[in-house]
Amino acid sequence: MSPRRTVRVDLGDRSYPIVLGHETLADVGGAVAERTGASQAVLVSVPGVNRLYGATAARSLREAGLRVLRLEVPDGDATKNLRQVAKLYDALVEKGADRSAVVVSLGGGMVSDLAGFVAATYLRGIQFVTVPTTILAMVDAGVGGKVGVNLKQGKNLVGAFHQPRLVWVDTATLASLPRRDRAAGLAEVVKAGAIWDASFFDRLERAGEKLLEADPDLLIPVLARACQIKAEVVSRDERESGLRMILNFGHTLGHAVEALHRYRGILHGEAVAIGMVFAARRSEALGLAPEGTAERIEDLLRRLELPTERPDFARGAYLSALKVDKKKKDAHVRFVVLREIGRAETCPLTPAEILPAGRRSRAARGGRS
Amino acid sequence: MSPRRTVRVDLGDRSYPIVLGHETLADVGGAVAERTGASQAVLVSVPGVNRLYGATAARSLREAGLRVLRLEVPDGDATKNLRQVAKLYDALVEKGADRSAVVVSLGGGMVSDLAGFVAATYLRGIQFVTVPTTILAMVDAGVGGKVGVNLKQGKNLVGAFHQPRLVWVDTATLASLPRRDRAAGLAEVVKAGAIWDASFFDRLERAGEKLLEADPDLLIPVLARACQIKAEVVSRDERESGLRMILNFGHTLGHAVEALHRYRGILHGEAVAIGMVFAARRSEALGLAPEGTAERIEDLLRRLELPTERPDFARGAYLSALKVDKKKKDAHVRFVVLREIGRAETCPLTPAEILPAGRRSRAARGGRS
Repeated sequence: MSPRRTVRVDLGDRSYPIVLGHETLADVGGAVAERTGASQAVLVSVPGVNRLYGATAARSLREAGLRVLRLEVPDGDATKNLRQVAKLYDALVEKGADRSAVVVSLGGGMVSDLAGFVAATYLRGIQFVTVPTTILAMVDAGVGGKVGVNLKQGKNLVGAFHQPRLVWVDTATLASLPRRDRAAGLAEVVKAGAIWDASFFDRLERAGEKLLEADPDLLIPVLARACQIKAEVVSRDERESGLRMILNFGHTLGHAVEALHRYRGILHGEAVAIGMVFAARRSEALGLAPEGTAERIEDLLRRLELPTERPDFARGAYLSALKVDKKKKDAHVRFVVLREIGRAETCPLTPAEILPAGRRSRAARGGRS
Repeated sequence: MSPRRTVRVDLGDRSYPIVLGHETLADVGGAVAERTGASQAVLVSVPGVNRLYGATAARSLREAGLRVLRLEVPDGDATKNLRQVAKLYDALVEKGADRSAVVVSLGGGMVSDLAGFVAATYLRGIQFVTVPTTILAMVDAGVGGKVGVNLKQGKNLVGAFHQPRLVWVDTATLASLPRRDRAAGLAEVVKAGAIWDASFFDRLERAGEKLLEADPDLLIPVLARACQIKAEVVSRDERESGLRMILNFGHTLGHAVEALHRYRGILHGEAVAIGMVFAARRSEALGLAPEGTAERIEDLLRRLELPTERPDFARGAYLSALKVDKKKKDAHVRFVVLREIGRAETCPLTPAEILPAGRRSRAARGGRS
């Protein structure tokens, strides 16, 4: 039997557990009932995931005594919008969901962001549980309480902080996740080590490509530690006023890369991988991190089949993409740099300082020098 | 010079002051700047109020060093909806509002509910200040942090708890408020006395119809005490899990009356007045409150030119209106009863128990017996 781990996210009266295990989806109902005391579960999923796991989750919830309302939203980040939110509200009202209902999201980060925002705002907030089925959602979307949707002008411009009552991770659901998505999710795991825990980073280096195989005995402790790191950071700064910013390591340039691709053809984790290598190189160039820091990160990400080179868009395009970062405060961006593997801090830089003139991407120069 | 009063709403790190005065609108900018440190103010108002007070408020904000974006939404509760929310998001994005912006609502409860919900969810929450221009908004919408919008299926079905950083009350803005709206706002003032403070209720009885004249020397201490009462209740139960329910005194039937009128031709405060008299009579009939309790409430409300008799809709219509109350938990409604003037509690009753068969409204029986 594979190990079960519980990570507690410590947020006072909003604390909650992340329970990680293998082939545990059939047990989710009891845990939801115990944690929420809800009498109705609104199970929100996307078609692919719903077909594979929806019935098992619904049955488990029903066996635990909850009435179950199953709702499906179209897959893809493009549908994480206000229109879907309004449709979900309508379904909740029509089915008589009241304050004793819990919203349970089953799927990746897109569905938990969307369903979580509905839970945060329906009747001024009802309970929320997430059952993530991607590595990215397990270590990232599930922890931190950020929920929200996109506007046509940009991603995640609307949202709330709404902590789940429970995160239920069944690594068996990863079997159906494409290898490329698994790799992309691992980028956030690498990030956790890089910003917070050097010995965890060492462990990831030892495991390397084996992490892609979704072996629960290897993966559960690794995912648990990644969750724990995020939980530690979030616990100290729930509303993202300071420390929590370090979780944006790799994300400033990563967001720009995603935006320049118009969010097509590149996964979030892939863009973050590129952004982390870039940020680590900048940290070295600024004299903040010892030489070799970026190389270790780059090597590990390559073993995880992730891209590490900045795509060759014009500098001007990068600069304007960096400027629309919604975390901008006046002209400066709080750029996350490494001091060494396991230690990060923020540094206020303008887009032009983040990407100085005369620096072409390695890709454009013809690969590694 | 009229008295200035400050009421502190004590909610830990979300505490904020309600500052009440007369002819103080021109000073709002300095207070906003000091409380929020914001660099941009998004001033949201409705046409009538905007025409009278928008320029003064905007000038004051500008003189305090804030950039000001003025936005207008159509008046009326029917436009407190997701469509207006989406339009406000768009305006904020297009004008580059970031996390250093504060949303300032100028108007009644409708605009503060709507603008407050936008503030609660734009970029996962930015700062919010309300400048209420109706008595109802001064004592009710301004305190408690409830923000939200209507769905076509019902009122306030979507929302959040988002505390303002400051509530700025200038009673001079009441001069332009129709007498009927003033009366309706005073219903919530009477409620505050009835549920929490017998000596305040006495004071209201002594003032009676004079409260309708909007004399600041009389009104400011009265509004301050009403705010303070709500603040005391909210401080002890921010998320409405128990005690705060008593603020719904008069609202269970009141909401039903509003719904049966399809929200037309009756003001919220008028429906609450009817609901309070009804609830006080039920409290007496249940043997919970001493005889004469309802009569005192009824007499005071009549002096304030408020209706007190339940309109003559069929009992079945009332029962189904009571059932869609979104605060329902299973079949029971937490109906607020009085134990005496100044002391309220909740009592779980089914709609049929709230309105037993064979009880026709007095109006239908031909007035007072």
